[in-house]
Amino acid sequence: MKSFAEISQYINDSVQKIDWVKNPKGLYEPISYTMLQSGKRVRPALLLMSYELFKKNIEQALNPALAIEVFHNFTLLHDDIMDNAEIRRGEPTVHIKWDTNTAILSGDVMQIIAYKLLTDTPQEHLKNILNTFNQTAAEICEGQQFDMEFESREEVSLNEYIDMIRLKTGVLLGASMKIGAIIADASESNQNYLYDFGVNIGLAFQLKDDLLDVYGDSSQFGKKIGGDIICNKKTYLLIHAKNQAKGKIKTDLEYWINAKDINSEQKVKKITEIYNSLGVKKTCEDAMTSYYKKAIASLEQVNVNSSKKQELRKLAEELMFRNE
Amino acid sequence: MKSFAEISQYINDSVQKIDWVKNPKGLYEPISYTMLQSGKRVRPALLLMSYELFKKNIEQALNPALAIEVFHNFTLLHDDIMDNAEIRRGEPTVHIKWDTNTAILSGDVMQIIAYKLLTDTPQEHLKNILNTFNQTAAEICEGQQFDMEFESREEVSLNEYIDMIRLKTGVLLGASMKIGAIIADASESNQNYLYDFGVNIGLAFQLKDDLLDVYGDSSQFGKKIGGDIICNKKTYLLIHAKNQAKGKIKTDLEYWINAKDINSEQKVKKITEIYNSLGVKKTCEDAMTSYYKKAIASLEQVNVNSSKKQELRKLAEELMFRNE
Repeated sequence: MKSFAEISQYINDSVQKIDWVKNPKGLYEPISYTMLQSGKRVRPALLLMSYELFKKNIEQALNPALAIEVFHNFTLLHDDIMDNAEIRRGEPTVHIKWDTNTAILSGDVMQIIAYKLLTDTPQEHLKNILNTFNQTAAEICEGQQFDMEFESREEVSLNEYIDMIRLKTGVLLGASMKIGAIIADASESNQNYLYDFGVNIGLAFQLKDDLLDVYGDSSQFGKKIGGDIICNKKTYLLIHAKNQAKGKIKTDLEYWINAKDINSEQKVKKITEIYNSLGVKKTCEDAMTSYYKKAIASLEQVNVNSSKKQELRKLAEELMFRNE
Repeated sequence: MKSFAEISQYINDSVQKIDWVKNPKGLYEPISYTMLQSGKRVRPALLLMSYELFKKNIEQALNPALAIEVFHNFTLLHDDIMDNAEIRRGEPTVHIKWDTNTAILSGDVMQIIAYKLLTDTPQEHLKNILNTFNQTAAEICEGQQFDMEFESREEVSLNEYIDMIRLKTGVLLGASMKIGAIIADASESNQNYLYDFGVNIGLAFQLKDDLLDVYGDSSQFGKKIGGDIICNKKTYLLIHAKNQAKGKIKTDLEYWINAKDINSEQKVKKITEIYNSLGVKKTCEDAMTSYYKKAIASLEQVNVNSSKKQELRKLAEELMFRNE
């Protein structure tokens, strides 16, 4: 079985080999720019690792794997417009480097390229793969919509938050696993266990992201610590803190959330102190561990030799215990 | 054979029956708003009329026909953002009624809904249909990109213009015809003749639009006469006029194109006079007639009883000799 690093390298090499730029260049250059940026390629790697549980020739599943990567990058491109994000992976986002119209239209074509790559799969699996992919793609948009709506809502419950990150992040990891299994002719129950593995790893992965924003090591995290705190992003930590806070802590938390024109380092420090006093780090870690364990339990149910699952176990662990 | 009016009514009824609004409502309500607006439903009607040349039970091709309509409306929704259009079919556009982020994301989901509807087709045709649709969808985005690039370019040739409208308008009419034929098990040569019929009708249709903008009857056209002239849109008429104009006419044309803060009625009147003096109306009508004839010639090649083609001939004629 290939390691995540090997598979990730194989995907990177394959992405490099594709000639992304066609005419009109103004439409396709932003796609090339986006696709050639370095990334971990987690989703297509999951698809190929899932396939490899059952069959060896992973190149059979390469195009659907690339489809998932293109689709994921399309969602980032459009999300960056909606979120006014200026930097992605250390580079200017497409709507900043070009303009919003270009980012909209290049994103639209990326969605079509994803479908082109997905269509390049044996006819007998096509309908099944498309049904999984179509549902997932719509769910990801629903997740983004909830994420945007939560920004302007006063109250968001932890359940609503978990459901949002399930849609926005979890289901694409699940679908990657499931599509790999479908192409490898895995049984329906194996497909579903692998889907659940992916969704739960996705949830744990996002909670880890929430934790790293506050408790990460800034030298390794790559982003500025406390970015979520500064913009009052309703993460698991903030939602849970708001639920738990009472008396003076509640007043303090509300003060720092609503304060205008304040020193942002001071805000990060103060809200982190409130998080610490309420023990929200531990609660978030517990939730993360619980999803991680669910994921592993699902993986163990997959009816293949246990040794074959070792690379997926390792990857899940890496994603959980990463510092960046 | 059913008439265009009957088929269009069947599509409208089918669109009405679908429950477009799911959760989150903020994402799906703009889709319902867009899909329930009245429209001619030309593209899905072409798909079903193409199918009906070969087989009777048109309900077999309904979902792919609706897919084309949803996709077409998605392109309008995103184009309206890019073109800053405030009104569509007499109603505020989605990015005006809601906001740009909503219009981006609802459009993205419409593209996915189009693929969902398209996937709901017998497995044996799926790959073929998807290949046709994927290529067409990418070409439509390419057409929109060229259209935007032409706005800021000094010179655009007639050939470039024709290629742009072929991509932006023609190929979707062609693909509608072809997909209908594929689902009806038509031969490849019949599929291709019908594709060519659609593309050429699309070209003629767009040239008719260019003509109506200047020479339409404002009481019937529904839009203000001269809209393209006011914003210097590089239509067939303007490009050809720029090519033909010499001496004083050339100077006058350039004056009115570049004039700022002028009376727009005056501009429309003056540029129309220049068009008239150069005979560009006739040249555009000749080009339109030539594409119309190409379309009909292609239709005549389709290997089915000539009487079955009567409704398509009638529709093509209606589209050419319409006043709105």
